[in-house]
Amino acid sequence: MTIDMKKLQGEIDKFVTDRDWDQFHSVKNLSMALSVECSELVEIFQWMKEEKSNAVASDPETIGKVKDEVADIFFYLMRVVEKTGIDLEKAVLEKIKKNEEKYPVEKSRGISKKYNEF
Amino acid sequence: MTIDMKKLQGEIDKFVTDRDWDQFHSVKNLSMALSVECSELVEIFQWMKEEKSNAVASDPETIGKVKDEVADIFFYLMRVVEKTGIDLEKAVLEKIKKNEEKYPVEKSRGISKKYNEF
Amino acid sequence: MTIDMKKLQGEIDKFVTDRDWDQFHSVKNLSMALSVECSELVEIFQWMKEEKSNAVASDPETIGKVKDEVADIFFYLMRVVEKTGIDLEKAVLEKIKKNEEKYPVEKSRGISKKYNEF
Amino acid sequence: MTIDMKKLQGEIDKFVTDRDWDQFHSVKNLSMALSVECSELVEIFQWMKEEKSNAVASDPETIGKVKDEVADIFFYLMRVVEKTGIDLEKAVLEKIKKNEEKYPVEKSRGISKKYNEF
Repeated sequence: MTIDMKKLQGEIDKFVTDRDWDQFHSVKNLSMALSVECSELVEIFQWMKEEKSNAVASDPETIGKVKDEVADIFFYLMRVVEKTGIDLEKAVLEKIKKNEEKYPVEKSRGISKKYNEF
Repeated sequence: MTIDMKKLQGEIDKFVTDRDWDQFHSVKNLSMALSVECSELVEIFQWMKEEKSNAVASDPETIGKVKDEVADIFFYLMRVVEKTGIDLEKAVLEKIKKNEEKYPVEKSRGISKKYNEF
Repeated sequence: MTIDMKKLQGEIDKFVTDRDWDQFHSVKNLSMALSVECSELVEIFQWMKEEKSNAVASDPETIGKVKDEVADIFFYLMRVVEKTGIDLEKAVLEKIKKNEEKYPVEKSRGISKKYNEF
Repeated sequence: MTIDMKKLQGEIDKFVTDRDWDQFHSVKNLSMALSVECSELVEIFQWMKEEKSNAVASDPETIGKVKDEVADIFFYLMRVVEKTGIDLEKAVLEKIKKNEEKYPVEKSRGISKKYNEF
């Protein structure tokens, strides 16, 4: 699966430009909006057992809400990416490399500790 | 630009599997981790003026941190997508459609109000 | 137990004034800082089982971190309260009243649904 | 001003017990709910200029929302405090002491840097 990022970015840009909303989208404000959308995802799961959260795909009403929140998160993440000029694919690959060093397999295997707690 | 999602998902999966971390990655827990990473992005901007946040690309130290946080957010968003089986591209396009109806251009142009405040 | 709010507010104000930090503390920025501190609390529990989180008081290292984060959250909450002139005790009592109406006992007893899902 | 914490805790406990909601209130879940309420406060300010956020007390509609969110944040913070047995006043005073050491006046006066960036 590839995602046609050019198409998605085009749709996102069009939505924003049609409403003249770029004036509100400072990177600072976008970081706030992004965290608000994440919390709307958290809200879905705040009283839910972990096991039930893993079966969310089989609950049509809830998975619909999850889809909407995931989409909103992606929307604002793409806005941050565009406003800062970050190369997303490169940034992700480089961060995974960094994390491989911070979390060596032999120290972190099966352990959920933070790297500074080893 | 397209993003090779298959490649990124492969790298993410490998990182998680090598460390046997999937056991911690309930959808509930992933939503928490995602919101924590978003807050690390917010932290960069919490005392920064909006104008300065828009120029973050020209500040090498800060843009490096922004890249890392954006990558971490994408990482956990992809984990949620994989665990829930969401079709990300479709979800984003459908949500933009919904938002076009919630925020009609004539009511929302140049206005940052929430749809339920019109 | 009462909390001597005047004393706590005095300590908080002194800390901020000594560092000339009030200039950074717009209500907008304080809301960001407050959410960042909450996420640092969430981070402690993101991979932890619910049962273990309930026993956190008996884990000296972790409860120490929880105390620090709870204190940071209270610090910024008090800053928001001071900058907006909110009467905290009154606000809490009024909100509980509102919630009693939104969540009537007979509809919400033992059920974690949101009021708009009844 | 003192806050009658015993009274507030009593009202909060009664609200929760009447609805049999303590079963949902693991410390983990409460940390999630607390961060969700903080984001609802952030949402009020996400597109607002800092100056306007500082004048929020003179906007009756918006200050009403701020009050509600501040109350919700306090509600869940008190739940965390009760479930973990933390002495809130002591925790806040101790944390301010720690921060006085992390942020010496001479290094941090008028500067919004994080302590590890000095």
